[in-house]
Amino acid sequence: MPFTILITGGAGYVGSHTVLELLNAGHDVVCVDNLCNAYIDDNGGLPEALKRVQEITRRKVTFYNVDIRSKSDLEAVFKKHKIDCVGHFAALKAVGESCKYPLQYYQNNITGTNVLLETMAEANVFKFVYSSSATVYGEPQTLPVPETHPTGNCTSPYGKSKYFTEEILKDLCLSDEKWTVISLRYFNPVGAHSSGRIGEDPNGEPNNLMPYISQVAVGRRPLLKVYGNDYPTKDGTGVRDYIHIVDLAEGHVKAFEKLMSKTCKGFVAYNLGTGCGYSVLEMINSFKKASGRDIKYEIAPRRDGDIATCYADPSLAAKELNWTAKRGLKEMCEDTWRWQHMNPHGFAKN
Amino acid sequence: MPFTILITGGAGYVGSHTVLELLNAGHDVVCVDNLCNAYIDDNGGLPEALKRVQEITRRKVTFYNVDIRSKSDLEAVFKKHKIDCVGHFAALKAVGESCKYPLQYYQNNITGTNVLLETMAEANVFKFVYSSSATVYGEPQTLPVPETHPTGNCTSPYGKSKYFTEEILKDLCLSDEKWTVISLRYFNPVGAHSSGRIGEDPNGEPNNLMPYISQVAVGRRPLLKVYGNDYPTKDGTGVRDYIHIVDLAEGHVKAFEKLMSKTCKGFVAYNLGTGCGYSVLEMINSFKKASGRDIKYEIAPRRDGDIATCYADPSLAAKELNWTAKRGLKEMCEDTWRWQHMNPHGFAKN
Repeated sequence: MPFTILITGGAGYVGSHTVLELLNAGHDVVCVDNLCNAYIDDNGGLPEALKRVQEITRRKVTFYNVDIRSKSDLEAVFKKHKIDCVGHFAALKAVGESCKYPLQYYQNNITGTNVLLETMAEANVFKFVYSSSATVYGEPQTLPVPETHPTGNCTSPYGKSKYFTEEILKDLCLSDEKWTVISLRYFNPVGAHSSGRIGEDPNGEPNNLMPYISQVAVGRRPLLKVYGNDYPTKDGTGVRDYIHIVDLAEGHVKAFEKLMSKTCKGFVAYNLGTGCGYSVLEMINSFKKASGRDIKYEIAPRRDGDIATCYADPSLAAKELNWTAKRGLKEMCEDTWRWQHMNPHGFAKN
Repeated sequence: MPFTILITGGAGYVGSHTVLELLNAGHDVVCVDNLCNAYIDDNGGLPEALKRVQEITRRKVTFYNVDIRSKSDLEAVFKKHKIDCVGHFAALKAVGESCKYPLQYYQNNITGTNVLLETMAEANVFKFVYSSSATVYGEPQTLPVPETHPTGNCTSPYGKSKYFTEEILKDLCLSDEKWTVISLRYFNPVGAHSSGRIGEDPNGEPNNLMPYISQVAVGRRPLLKVYGNDYPTKDGTGVRDYIHIVDLAEGHVKAFEKLMSKTCKGFVAYNLGTGCGYSVLEMINSFKKASGRDIKYEIAPRRDGDIATCYADPSLAAKELNWTAKRGLKEMCEDTWRWQHMNPHGFAKN
């Protein structure tokens, strides 16, 4: 049975790929986004990412330019549509920027979520999927990291905003059994839809490795900095669990189906990762092969707050959501490159 | 040199006693309060607590009925007055209620603080005293509890809201060295001003022991429930560090003076406690003596989230703020009783 799902932050990287898979799975999607990190052409209307999602899926996306901190704007959306459940992707996500502008991060990510939850409760909607992050685990005490690993001890306001929000969601579920919340803890989403039509399109200098590599490969940036080659890892560079964005989006579809089933109660968190760790140098080499381009890099000092190694134990999602990541490193790099090569300047025309 | 201090939540228990001591110390005070927990008579104007502060001090309090979540209302106050620093007391504070209505607590306590901090920054005011709580320590791992004790692991949304806000304040100070923040971690404030004219006046059933005892003593409630007599303490009942509200208020005066001095940088937290722990039964016995009344009580099961024992190491405030608590248990009970006896229904006339 199809659901009507409200997606916040639907014009973003994870949001747009998830909207695409939800539409393909037959669900109806209403998107809100404040467009703070999305391209929209001069004629207005849909953000470019969602226009392309419509082209690919041949289905309609309903879109509102709404900031979730504005309760009256959100209320209007809930009045206009009979929403069954909400997927909440709207958030600021740059770790470094969050250290510079912590209040902006806390207001967008925590207050924004609270306003959304208040509005949902008033509209009698109590089913919620949350975009969380492996950063809630802080520095892993065990590897792979299971969902039972302690959370907290986050080093950046970004990470804290994810951790605090999970705590708020737990408290909310304890306060009223009407609430059902699935928190999806993403490891490192990379890649793009196989059409090459949508992908990651960061504003300004990328914060994450993969878009940085691909912007160097396509010639938009001269050089990649690799932060630290003296970590206790196979080659000294940091090891992360990269997950293909389409796998991640499919994980969301499974989560929404679980959320709407009768077996789902209260707050539950799932890791979305592959369970495999790759080093920065492995990523660079794999991307070189996929793109046929050279990736110039230099070794720079470690960054504050970075950890050596992190990868998921994804077995709970396999068991309870019937989901596992299917796409390997080669596909991650090839799909990233297709997107980057077809859209050297992202969604903007030039 | 006197300062102009904005006090949020100035009509509340800690707020009003602090306003009184700040005025006595020669500072100017501008108060805002949304009156959600304050008595105001039909003629409007000042909340009763602040009227009485004016009578006692023979000085003027400027008051605005403002909810700190309303940025435009706060901006108007900062435009009208040249504020030197802010003392932030406005918050919801009932542990049990916070478990029932977590979003209300997070919106009032976290979003409210964020809006206040944003407004301050825009008004070029960067000096802040925060009403924190010993609950940020969770269950103490060492006794007495020093400021270096780990924070977090709070069990209620109320406690988490205090902990999260401290983290936000730390991040803010790290992001911009213009900010100076003193977080005062209160242990258990009790008592009243020696005049008997102002004191604690909870809405409905009191959440804390002392106002409950005194309402039983004065005949407003039939019976006190003592939650648990099987804790590993001297008599089995919970042990806490009770601090006289006037000592606490004096601690704030010292904190503001430190805050405005050149020796204060970044974020710093101080315990405000006596360093002595008293059990529930000791409190009841002491209050019996002070009031000459019988206090009927019965033993009830432990409450979720309650801990056995907590008391402060107050030595850092002694060293750096030149402040120690001077008033003992007898004075705490006598002053509470004077207030309760002179005002059996609190600030309301009957």
